[in-house]
Amino acid sequence: MQIREKLSTNLSLVKEKSPLIHHITNYVTVNDCANIVLAIGGSPVMADDIEEVEEMVGFASALVINIGTLNSRTIESMLSAGLKAKELGVPVILDPVGVGATKLRTNTAARLIQTLKPEVIRGNMSEIKVLAGLEVAIKGVDSLADEQDGSVVAKTLASELGSIIAITGKTDIVSDGKQVCLLDNGHQILADVTGTGCMTTSLVGTYCGVTKDYFSAAVAGITSMGLAGEIAQASLRHGEGIGTFRTRLFDSIYNLNPELLAREGKIRYE
Amino acid sequence: MQIREKLSTNLSLVKEKSPLIHHITNYVTVNDCANIVLAIGGSPVMADDIEEVEEMVGFASALVINIGTLNSRTIESMLSAGLKAKELGVPVILDPVGVGATKLRTNTAARLIQTLKPEVIRGNMSEIKVLAGLEVAIKGVDSLADEQDGSVVAKTLASELGSIIAITGKTDIVSDGKQVCLLDNGHQILADVTGTGCMTTSLVGTYCGVTKDYFSAAVAGITSMGLAGEIAQASLRHGEGIGTFRTRLFDSIYNLNPELLAREGKIRYE
Amino acid sequence: MQIREKLSTNLSLVKEKSPLIHHITNYVTVNDCANIVLAIGGSPVMADDIEEVEEMVGFASALVINIGTLNSRTIESMLSAGLKAKELGVPVILDPVGVGATKLRTNTAARLIQTLKPEVIRGNMSEIKVLAGLEVAIKGVDSLADEQDGSVVAKTLASELGSIIAITGKTDIVSDGKQVCLLDNGHQILADVTGTGCMTTSLVGTYCGVTKDYFSAAVAGITSMGLAGEIAQASLRHGEGIGTFRTRLFDSIYNLNPELLAREGKIRYE
Repeated sequence: MQIREKLSTNLSLVKEKSPLIHHITNYVTVNDCANIVLAIGGSPVMADDIEEVEEMVGFASALVINIGTLNSRTIESMLSAGLKAKELGVPVILDPVGVGATKLRTNTAARLIQTLKPEVIRGNMSEIKVLAGLEVAIKGVDSLADEQDGSVVAKTLASELGSIIAITGKTDIVSDGKQVCLLDNGHQILADVTGTGCMTTSLVGTYCGVTKDYFSAAVAGITSMGLAGEIAQASLRHGEGIGTFRTRLFDSIYNLNPELLAREGKIRYE
Repeated sequence: MQIREKLSTNLSLVKEKSPLIHHITNYVTVNDCANIVLAIGGSPVMADDIEEVEEMVGFASALVINIGTLNSRTIESMLSAGLKAKELGVPVILDPVGVGATKLRTNTAARLIQTLKPEVIRGNMSEIKVLAGLEVAIKGVDSLADEQDGSVVAKTLASELGSIIAITGKTDIVSDGKQVCLLDNGHQILADVTGTGCMTTSLVGTYCGVTKDYFSAAVAGITSMGLAGEIAQASLRHGEGIGTFRTRLFDSIYNLNPELLAREGKIRYE
Repeated sequence: MQIREKLSTNLSLVKEKSPLIHHITNYVTVNDCANIVLAIGGSPVMADDIEEVEEMVGFASALVINIGTLNSRTIESMLSAGLKAKELGVPVILDPVGVGATKLRTNTAARLIQTLKPEVIRGNMSEIKVLAGLEVAIKGVDSLADEQDGSVVAKTLASELGSIIAITGKTDIVSDGKQVCLLDNGHQILADVTGTGCMTTSLVGTYCGVTKDYFSAAVAGITSMGLAGEIAQASLRHGEGIGTFRTRLFDSIYNLNPELLAREGKIRYE
C-alpha cells in the first residue's frame, strides 16, 4: 500500500474505532491534547496516579507520554504505565519536551527510552539532537530545523533505538531507520501557539491506536496537524491572530477527511 | 412553584448573588470549569492543598469535587474539604469521572459518597451504573444512555443515598428518589468536546450555591448546558467544528437569561 | 525617555528578543499564560519540579511566580527558583492570587516577598491591601478598586518593599514608591474571563525580560492587556460573549504593535 493510501486508511480507522488514548502529559496543554484527540475521532483519557495507570493503560489502544511538566511523582507513573503498555503490546509514544534543558529532563528521557523502547518519539530538532547525543544549544523548547542534517539524525537514531523518530519543524522528518519521509505541510504560525507540538504527538498516538504500521501513523499525525494548520491559517482575516487560528485549528482537524488528507499531504521520500 | 419558574429564579439568583464555587477538580478541564462558572454569573475558586481547602470552603456557597485526575494528595484534600463543607452546610456536588475504570476511582468514589453524602452526583450512565453496583462494561469516560433503565437506576440510587442523581446522555435524567425529570435539550456534538460533562457539574454546583432545592439546581445546570449547546451548534457554518462550537458554547452560557432558560427547557416528568 | 516612548521600545524589544519567561504558576490558567506570552512575542516555559527549576531559570529572562493553585511541593520550587533568579539577576514577578483568603496563601506570599524581594508584585486591590497589612474583606479573588486609597497603598507598599507594586482594577495603579501611574485602558468584561489577571502578570514578566526599567515593564504589560481587551470587546456582535471575547483577546495581543500601544495607552501620572 502506498503511503497516501495508508494515511487515508488510518484516518478512516480512527473515525471507525475511536481508539482510547491514555495520556500522561503536561498540565499546560493537556486540554488541547484531549480536544485534538476528540477532534480527529479518538477518545482521550488522562490519568497519572501510580495506583491506577496500569489498569487504565489496559483499556487503551496507545499510551502518550509527554514530559513537559514532569515531576518526581509523575515520572514513576510514566515508567509504570509504560512497562504495562509494553507487556500488553500497547504502543508507547514519547514527547521528550525540553530534553537537554535540564538534567531532570535529559535523565528522565533517557530512562523512559531505555526502559520502554517507545514505538515513536516525536520532538523538535533540538530535542532529537539531544537524544542523539549530539551537542546542541538549546533554548527552552524552540525548534531549529536543518533538513539535511535532520534526515541523518532521524535515520541513525531510529536505527539505534528501534523507534520511529519524528522531527517536526519547517520540514518534518520521519524515519524508521531505513526509509525517511520529508513532510512539507504546515505553517509558521503553528509555532506561535502553545501545544501544537504536544497535539501533534497526541495525533500520532491516536493513529498508533489503529495500526501497527507506526511509521504511517507518525506520518499521518504530523500531516494532519500540518494540513489543518494550513487550512486554519488561510482562513484568517485582517485583525485575527493566534486566538482565532487556534479555534480554527480544532475545526480543521474535526473536518479533516481521509480523501483530503491523502490528496493534500505533501510527502516526499528521501 | 413549577420547575420552569424555579429554573428562571435560580438563574436570576446566580446573576444577583454570584456565588463562590470552590472546585477540587481535574487539570484537564479546570480552565473550562472556571470560565463556565464565570459565564453563568458565578465566581469560581480552585484550591486543592490540604492546608487551605477547609478555609477556602468556608467562603464558598458550594463545593464541586471532580475525580478526573485524582491522585493520592488530592483525594485527601477532597475528603477534608468535603467534611468541612458538610459541617458548614455547604452543598457538595460530586462528578465521579471514570468510576469503574480503575479500582482507585471506584474506591475513591465510594469513600467520597460514604463520607460526604453529596447533595448531588452527576455522571454518565456508565458511571452511575457503577455507583449503583451494577455490572457495566466501561470504556473510558464515554456515555451510553438507556432511558427506561436509567430512570430506575437514578431513582433507586437517589433513594438509597439520599442524593440527587443526575445522569447525562442523549436524554438526561434527574431524580431525588421520588420524582424523575427527563431532559431533552442538548446536541450530540457536546460529546465531541472534552469537559462538557465537567462543566455541567460546575453549572449544577453554581446553581446549588443559590438554592437549597438541589433538584431544581441539577435540572437548571443540565438544561443550561443543553440549551447553550443547541444554540452554539445551530450557529455553526460550513467548515466550522468543535473549535468554534466550544467558543460559542461559552458565548451562549454567557447570554443565557432566565426567560430563555424557562421557555426553551425541554423538561418532562416521568 | 517619556513613558509612551518606553512602552513602544519595550514592545519592540520583546518582538526582537523573544525573551524566555519561566513560570511556576497555577494549573487553571497556565495554558492562557503560555499563549499570551507567545502572542506578545515572548517564549514561555513552565517547569515546577524542584530538581529542575534552578537550571531552567538559568535560561530565563524573567521568572513569574503565581500562587493560584499553590501546594506544599510547588511552594518549595517557587522559593528555590526565586533564590536562583535573584542570584543570577533574573527579575522575579509575583502574582499573589487570593492572598488573604487562607493562611497558606498569606504565609506563602509573605515568605516569597521576604525571601525574594520580587521586582514586581501584581494583584487586585484586595490582594495588595492584604500585603499592605490592611484589613480587607476578601471574597475569593475578586477585585474592588478604590483609586484614591489605592495610590497611597501602592506607593507606600512599593517604598517599603522596594518592589514595583501594580494594582489592577477599573483604574490600574503602578508605583515604584516615588511615582504613581494611573492606567485607564481595559473593559469590565475582562473580569468575566478567568486568567486575565494571571495573563497580565505574564505580560508584565515578558516585558521585564527585556528591560531593567521594571516600572515601564509593569505599565506596558497592564496597558497591553487593557488595550487588547478594549479592541476585543469592541469587536463583539450580538450573541457573542466571553468565548469569542477570549479568542479575540489573544488576536488583539498578537496584533498589538509598538505604535498602537504608545498611541492608545491611557496613562496618567498622579
